[in-house]
Amino acid sequence: MPGNSFGHSFRITTFGESHGPAVGVVVDGCPPGIPLAEEDIQRELDRRRPGQSLIASARQETDAAEILSGVFEGVTTGTPIAVLVRNEDARSRDYAAIKDLFRPGHADYTYLAKYGVRDYRGGGRASARETIGRVAAGAIAKKLLGYEGVSVLGYTCQVGDVKMPTMERMTLEQVEASPVRCPDPETAAAMENLIKQVRSERDSIGSAVEIVARGVPAGLGEPVFDKLKADLAKALVSVPAVVGFEYGSGFAAVPSRGTQHNDPIIRRQTGSGGAPVIGTRTNNAGGMLGGISTGEPIVVRVALKPTASIPQPMETVDTQGNPQTIVTKGRHDPCLAPRFVPIGEAMVALVLADHLLRQRAIRGTE
Amino acid sequence: MPGNSFGHSFRITTFGESHGPAVGVVVDGCPPGIPLAEEDIQRELDRRRPGQSLIASARQETDAAEILSGVFEGVTTGTPIAVLVRNEDARSRDYAAIKDLFRPGHADYTYLAKYGVRDYRGGGRASARETIGRVAAGAIAKKLLGYEGVSVLGYTCQVGDVKMPTMERMTLEQVEASPVRCPDPETAAAMENLIKQVRSERDSIGSAVEIVARGVPAGLGEPVFDKLKADLAKALVSVPAVVGFEYGSGFAAVPSRGTQHNDPIIRRQTGSGGAPVIGTRTNNAGGMLGGISTGEPIVVRVALKPTASIPQPMETVDTQGNPQTIVTKGRHDPCLAPRFVPIGEAMVALVLADHLLRQRAIRGTE
Amino acid sequence: MPGNSFGHSFRITTFGESHGPAVGVVVDGCPPGIPLAEEDIQRELDRRRPGQSLIASARQETDAAEILSGVFEGVTTGTPIAVLVRNEDARSRDYAAIKDLFRPGHADYTYLAKYGVRDYRGGGRASARETIGRVAAGAIAKKLLGYEGVSVLGYTCQVGDVKMPTMERMTLEQVEASPVRCPDPETAAAMENLIKQVRSERDSIGSAVEIVARGVPAGLGEPVFDKLKADLAKALVSVPAVVGFEYGSGFAAVPSRGTQHNDPIIRRQTGSGGAPVIGTRTNNAGGMLGGISTGEPIVVRVALKPTASIPQPMETVDTQGNPQTIVTKGRHDPCLAPRFVPIGEAMVALVLADHLLRQRAIRGTE
Amino acid sequence: MPGNSFGHSFRITTFGESHGPAVGVVVDGCPPGIPLAEEDIQRELDRRRPGQSLIASARQETDAAEILSGVFEGVTTGTPIAVLVRNEDARSRDYAAIKDLFRPGHADYTYLAKYGVRDYRGGGRASARETIGRVAAGAIAKKLLGYEGVSVLGYTCQVGDVKMPTMERMTLEQVEASPVRCPDPETAAAMENLIKQVRSERDSIGSAVEIVARGVPAGLGEPVFDKLKADLAKALVSVPAVVGFEYGSGFAAVPSRGTQHNDPIIRRQTGSGGAPVIGTRTNNAGGMLGGISTGEPIVVRVALKPTASIPQPMETVDTQGNPQTIVTKGRHDPCLAPRFVPIGEAMVALVLADHLLRQRAIRGTE
Repeated sequence: MPGNSFGHSFRITTFGESHGPAVGVVVDGCPPGIPLAEEDIQRELDRRRPGQSLIASARQETDAAEILSGVFEGVTTGTPIAVLVRNEDARSRDYAAIKDLFRPGHADYTYLAKYGVRDYRGGGRASARETIGRVAAGAIAKKLLGYEGVSVLGYTCQVGDVKMPTMERMTLEQVEASPVRCPDPETAAAMENLIKQVRSERDSIGSAVEIVARGVPAGLGEPVFDKLKADLAKALVSVPAVVGFEYGSGFAAVPSRGTQHNDPIIRRQTGSGGAPVIGTRTNNAGGMLGGISTGEPIVVRVALKPTASIPQPMETVDTQGNPQTIVTKGRHDPCLAPRFVPIGEAMVALVLADHLLRQRAIRGTE
Repeated sequence: MPGNSFGHSFRITTFGESHGPAVGVVVDGCPPGIPLAEEDIQRELDRRRPGQSLIASARQETDAAEILSGVFEGVTTGTPIAVLVRNEDARSRDYAAIKDLFRPGHADYTYLAKYGVRDYRGGGRASARETIGRVAAGAIAKKLLGYEGVSVLGYTCQVGDVKMPTMERMTLEQVEASPVRCPDPETAAAMENLIKQVRSERDSIGSAVEIVARGVPAGLGEPVFDKLKADLAKALVSVPAVVGFEYGSGFAAVPSRGTQHNDPIIRRQTGSGGAPVIGTRTNNAGGMLGGISTGEPIVVRVALKPTASIPQPMETVDTQGNPQTIVTKGRHDPCLAPRFVPIGEAMVALVLADHLLRQRAIRGTE
Repeated sequence: MPGNSFGHSFRITTFGESHGPAVGVVVDGCPPGIPLAEEDIQRELDRRRPGQSLIASARQETDAAEILSGVFEGVTTGTPIAVLVRNEDARSRDYAAIKDLFRPGHADYTYLAKYGVRDYRGGGRASARETIGRVAAGAIAKKLLGYEGVSVLGYTCQVGDVKMPTMERMTLEQVEASPVRCPDPETAAAMENLIKQVRSERDSIGSAVEIVARGVPAGLGEPVFDKLKADLAKALVSVPAVVGFEYGSGFAAVPSRGTQHNDPIIRRQTGSGGAPVIGTRTNNAGGMLGGISTGEPIVVRVALKPTASIPQPMETVDTQGNPQTIVTKGRHDPCLAPRFVPIGEAMVALVLADHLLRQRAIRGTE
Repeated sequence: MPGNSFGHSFRITTFGESHGPAVGVVVDGCPPGIPLAEEDIQRELDRRRPGQSLIASARQETDAAEILSGVFEGVTTGTPIAVLVRNEDARSRDYAAIKDLFRPGHADYTYLAKYGVRDYRGGGRASARETIGRVAAGAIAKKLLGYEGVSVLGYTCQVGDVKMPTMERMTLEQVEASPVRCPDPETAAAMENLIKQVRSERDSIGSAVEIVARGVPAGLGEPVFDKLKADLAKALVSVPAVVGFEYGSGFAAVPSRGTQHNDPIIRRQTGSGGAPVIGTRTNNAGGMLGGISTGEPIVVRVALKPTASIPQPMETVDTQGNPQTIVTKGRHDPCLAPRFVPIGEAMVALVLADHLLRQRAIRGTE
């Protein structure tokens, strides 16, 4: 079983290398009748694209999305939706010098160990460019979720030691207002300064992103391996540079007590048909119990390692095993969180769309 | 797609509720010719079993494993291996009182929201007893991995604020020497004291477990969604009470710099056929780059929330939405890490066995 | 990917060898709230069991089904339903003599070629006994389908050259009235006589079974690989001894013309909400167009080869490749159709249950 | 689970409608290091293309294949291979007249019943054009199989009542020598005449295709649901217009006796390492026992219904349920076998490639 597909009922398959002709995705299982246009996809791709500010990579990509199938007269038809993005600014000459070297922190050696051959141009399939297919598919998932009243919003919550304070509900506009995608203006400014400083030192820095999904109905997630928390973990950790995942209290639960951690259960309101809608007073559970959504907001967080590509000499070996020094050239973000935000949102949206459809198979729409 | 199966080439399906007739697992895809006896499975089940010390639950379970298929004349045949464990000490009368109540921190409400019906006896499928199937399957995976030179070892690395110091390589004997399964005797004693204190306060406490796999060949893990790190994240987060996952540097990478974090690449030795064996000087990557194993030890860590079942009154509602107070009776571990160790090892072993076979499909055994 | 699972949303995994401790099945994805008792399963297993008449094998098996999980207070809970059947009459001494011989028409050689080891007792996993898990799971699928108004009925339509005449709708009682399971009494008698004659000649004979599903709503089946016709083909051809599959006109379409073959489309009635219910005047399409159900009866047929085990000397070799003569002893049906009927029904029911749930994922229950 | 993917270890996903921008396929799991060029794919697409002779459809399509990913410096890299074919001659105006009508023998009504919306231009996803992705992927599978010594060859064995005589081994050149793709020149001429006559009568006719795979090693196929015969059945029956499948003796086994049907087992030769290579004197089993390959040629046959699109008035209804008469215009083959040959070969190749890799996961390449 190869690994380029994700999801079961809402299932995507991505393809493409950073310096090949194109990257793209096939979305299989999107329900029919959802209005969908290329602009819906383009908007999210534009958020993902580098070169948007001084703190990000300068690679000029237009990343124009073309829908090849699955949409007719402006709505989805239920058949596979293929989205294609041509690679335009593929300067493969940049990479000839490192053809026989393994870049520290990159997948160069592991791809060679795995396959025996390697597309050495810019990371090939391990490039961040692979996430274009994820973001395009996530845009479609977001459309579907929107019709069900579900929203997904991410933001940079930590860069280096600079952490965002606790905020009540925030908006997409607040997030997009700063190039670091932190909705708190003061923290955003501090993060931006730190990133600039790191860049001036020819270094990179780690970061963290939090993603919140609201309006998720109770009951999503499949016992026991495909728990919602497990699929969210896989979805997010599968993104390049993600080195940690937590939800709700997460690692902060380790030093905590059960009396503090258990969320008291309350009656939120009366639902349709008079049935009570249950909720919790606190949300240490991050919106999931037993791996199934509670109806409270889903809250997840990921840790991103510092960008591996830094313009400083690093110790490595060549394919013959001889010691070498390498300096990664090219254009690289010193901090990954800002560009990760739309990618992380896409992965969360894909998991939720999949589980929404899987739950329908069990109980219908009732 | 229901969620009770895990893995692709080495694939398991578990079944059973805590208070039904039995729990068990079907392992499909185990290669033929592996010596396997019920004792191999029983040994791991015994490690998982509660009631082993003063700090753990007092439920008396023998958990005797019976192999129903897939083994002939002492070796695996390539056909499905079904393992059955009867439930013996199922005091379902303990649970009648909470039939109409939702226990905080438990999956009672979410199962009802998902399915419309609920097996209210002891958590049903959401019970920790479900992990028996995982551990039994993991024992088989460990046998397979053992033939390939791969070992998997877990240990409690933190209970509350008590953290284990950095240790070089440790042994199963060191881990099993203490009831908390911490290989450092001094830390183990401190952890044990803390757990006893928490228990005396009728409370519970969070914890963390680290798992290390050694001897994993470079090249395991499938780009891009089924990265080894992603499948490990899913496998471990799918276990009840796991609220966070990280590998290598993990969340500690957030405040770090690229110049510190990138592991320098070195030549370890000369392999068979004269090809160089590549390694890294440090292992911040936790043995994976691009989600593919590097050949260095795989190092993962999980956060476990405090046990939800505590003998104190908690605020909740009943199925009608009326406010109620609940006190969870029964026998519960105040700290989950010690019993999680064999479960976590099993999940890591299952992921590695699966990817070992998946890699063979791509390249054969060469 | 091993091959002991079938279906996606309604998914089964079978296990067990003919002479091991037990055979069984895990059904994952059955919706909650379906009344289910062991008798529902036992009834179908009893239909499958050999030793029911003079024309069938004399092996005495009680095949008592035990439900191990997934049912609580008489209804399904949505969690996996495991069904166990112990092997009781496993005379493995019968098989020691053929330990090193390959039986013609059996899977002895191919299992050895595949796995390098072989459970030589009675065919092991390739035994007809493996179908117990299918029939048990099919009984559950039938319960689910019954709630949706779908019925599945099979019957022997040909034995050797004896063919059943075209019949309008028939009943389970008519089918079960004869040991050959042909609903036309005259044909049934002729078939029975032919089978007895073949048996007296120490030979076996081929046969065919037709299965009809009524009440299947239009719209089931997934373009393009998981067409309903394709999944039915796979489901039925996966059963031992099935050597051909056709639906609707089938192979009779080869010498036909399009003007005869196209089914004229008509308005059947007015459905709920005033929408027209569409049907076809004839049903050459066997209830499927584009691999999706039309609402007309689904009609499929399979060819069964003559029983491979016959009490006559046959030419073979041993595991060393030396020429040998083998006479299969033991108790074997000379014609497979009668016992295949409940197995074939089970496979059709499993496909329909799966696609019913898959369609719900796409459109809900609306 | 949507249905646009096929295979497990060698897995394809197709996309595209007949009158949308493009059709294509993503092949995931192709091993690295296989030389592959666009010409390898183009050659097979050219065989599939209509408009090649008087007896076939006149639609002019160049169907130029573009490889978008997964190939670097002329060899596969192990990453997904995406192949794109633009739709060029998409005269969607031809179809406006039938927008609200259901064509008999077509999937118009069933797609609408399934999805609630329908791409009415030329069958949309149910068009024969969908098979382009299958043929492109099959070309890649053939390359892989070629390196393993496996060949796959199909031919038209029956048109209407005209059957091909039994032939010993035939070649691709013999098959391609006639526009009907029958390797026996005399039969080919008779078939061609029959097709011309049928066309002149504004009618269509059924046909059958046989496909033979040689060099398949013993041991391919997964017990019990993913038997090689079962996956071949599914693969072939999933193609539009296929209404029957059989292998080896097939339906001819129904009137046969076990004494005739069992293939005597013989020693073929001495293999590497001195182990005997086992074979069978006859091949009624079509190269598979227990659903696992025996090493003898795999022989399968399919029945194809007469082309549904015929230029004669047919009885139907419109979307409102009103009776209507429809005459299908456009360009259609009166007999489907000739164009099916490369499609059927592709499906067989895909199944064999998948099972070749799956067997490696179990036993390595040894």
